[in-house]
Amino acid sequence: MGAIDSFFAGSFLSEGLPGNARFDLAVICTPVQCIPQWCERLLPRTRGLVTDVGSTKAGICKQVRDLNVDATQFCGSHPMAGSEKDGVEHARAGLFDGKVAIVTPSQDTQPAAVQLAEELWRELGCSTMRLSPQQHDDAVASTSHLPHIVAAALASATDTELLSVAATGWADTTRVASGSPAMWRQIILENRGPIAAALKQFAGNLQQWTAAVEGGDEEQIQKLLEQGKTKRDALGN
Amino acid sequence: MGAIDSFFAGSFLSEGLPGNARFDLAVICTPVQCIPQWCERLLPRTRGLVTDVGSTKAGICKQVRDLNVDATQFCGSHPMAGSEKDGVEHARAGLFDGKVAIVTPSQDTQPAAVQLAEELWRELGCSTMRLSPQQHDDAVASTSHLPHIVAAALASATDTELLSVAATGWADTTRVASGSPAMWRQIILENRGPIAAALKQFAGNLQQWTAAVEGGDEEQIQKLLEQGKTKRDALGN
Repeated sequence: MGAIDSFFAGSFLSEGLPGNARFDLAVICTPVQCIPQWCERLLPRTRGLVTDVGSTKAGICKQVRDLNVDATQFCGSHPMAGSEKDGVEHARAGLFDGKVAIVTPSQDTQPAAVQLAEELWRELGCSTMRLSPQQHDDAVASTSHLPHIVAAALASATDTELLSVAATGWADTTRVASGSPAMWRQIILENRGPIAAALKQFAGNLQQWTAAVEGGDEEQIQKLLEQGKTKRDALGN
Repeated sequence: MGAIDSFFAGSFLSEGLPGNARFDLAVICTPVQCIPQWCERLLPRTRGLVTDVGSTKAGICKQVRDLNVDATQFCGSHPMAGSEKDGVEHARAGLFDGKVAIVTPSQDTQPAAVQLAEELWRELGCSTMRLSPQQHDDAVASTSHLPHIVAAALASATDTELLSVAATGWADTTRVASGSPAMWRQIILENRGPIAAALKQFAGNLQQWTAAVEGGDEEQIQKLLEQGKTKRDALGN
């Protein structure tokens, strides 16, 4: 597609990087469980910033701090953009326009690296937000990981022979469940604690719904619908 | 917008239709609880078909059968198309293209009325499917009403201060929660039994998820993700 000027092919995790390779900026775009290993190889070769785009942060930042390398140039990132599709054929130019990129400095991260991370995402069209790695993980457990699990559970709970009457409501509500199971399995394992808490909060709300539906409680159904609409409308499209 | 050639304004439910009004076709597009009342007024004036676009069918068809009018020209319909937006400003020409319209004849419906209903929706671009009113209600409880409740519960379970990090995943999964609470309250009350059953099936799947997340069961998480993806991918976009 003409997007890459030069490249190394091969498994550098096993073979190591070419001896003379030096970087100003490294952005690690791998499944989350590989990110610390890449940091270990890239940090000694990089003079500006090593960052990543993983969907979890606390575990990665902890593992990077525990590496036997200088990690002051590592600053985690999570651009809140993308879709359920993977592969370069789904690349699009405006992917980051108007999206939020969260940057998650740890205690070790030097200020210049944080600034570089924020500049990087702003140049790409994002607005940026600084959170600690743990604040990030708690937030995305609710806004990203829980919706994924709910979408998967909802899709699974639908009998196959009913799919012929599934319309846009079902399609929208379950869309993210098409995402890569291998990628999501790692995300969910990495962020188990906050996700379990988010699941509990959701299950409590669903329990209110079940009681209202079974009891035919018109007033409570109206209230629950209004709560949902108010929260959803607060986001916009 | 130039879409209406002639019209009656005013509340015909209280005032009645003009004495000389006669119809070939009547399509009732009101909240579900008003549909039987409109059938009562329209059936004696209509020589072809009276249908509706309500999201529930068994209750309506039963109430229409119990009316003191000839109901052989009534055939329920449910075009599986639309969005969370209401009002004429959200009308669009291609709304029905490629969508499924379910028609739900009851024992009383005469074959000519069923055919007219199917022709109507095919002319508008839908493919059609015949279900009994109860089969319809059971199906849409899973594919439409449950997703609405899940979306509302998921939106409500998200803390307001986290909305700034909500991305397309949260937006898609909760989109339908923006629908009209007054309309959805009626739908949910009308279809309580099948919705309660669908909620139970969903809660069972969610319980498996909670156990897998809390136990860090990698194999089970992978299996649940694959189940969800398989079901979702079966629908397409």
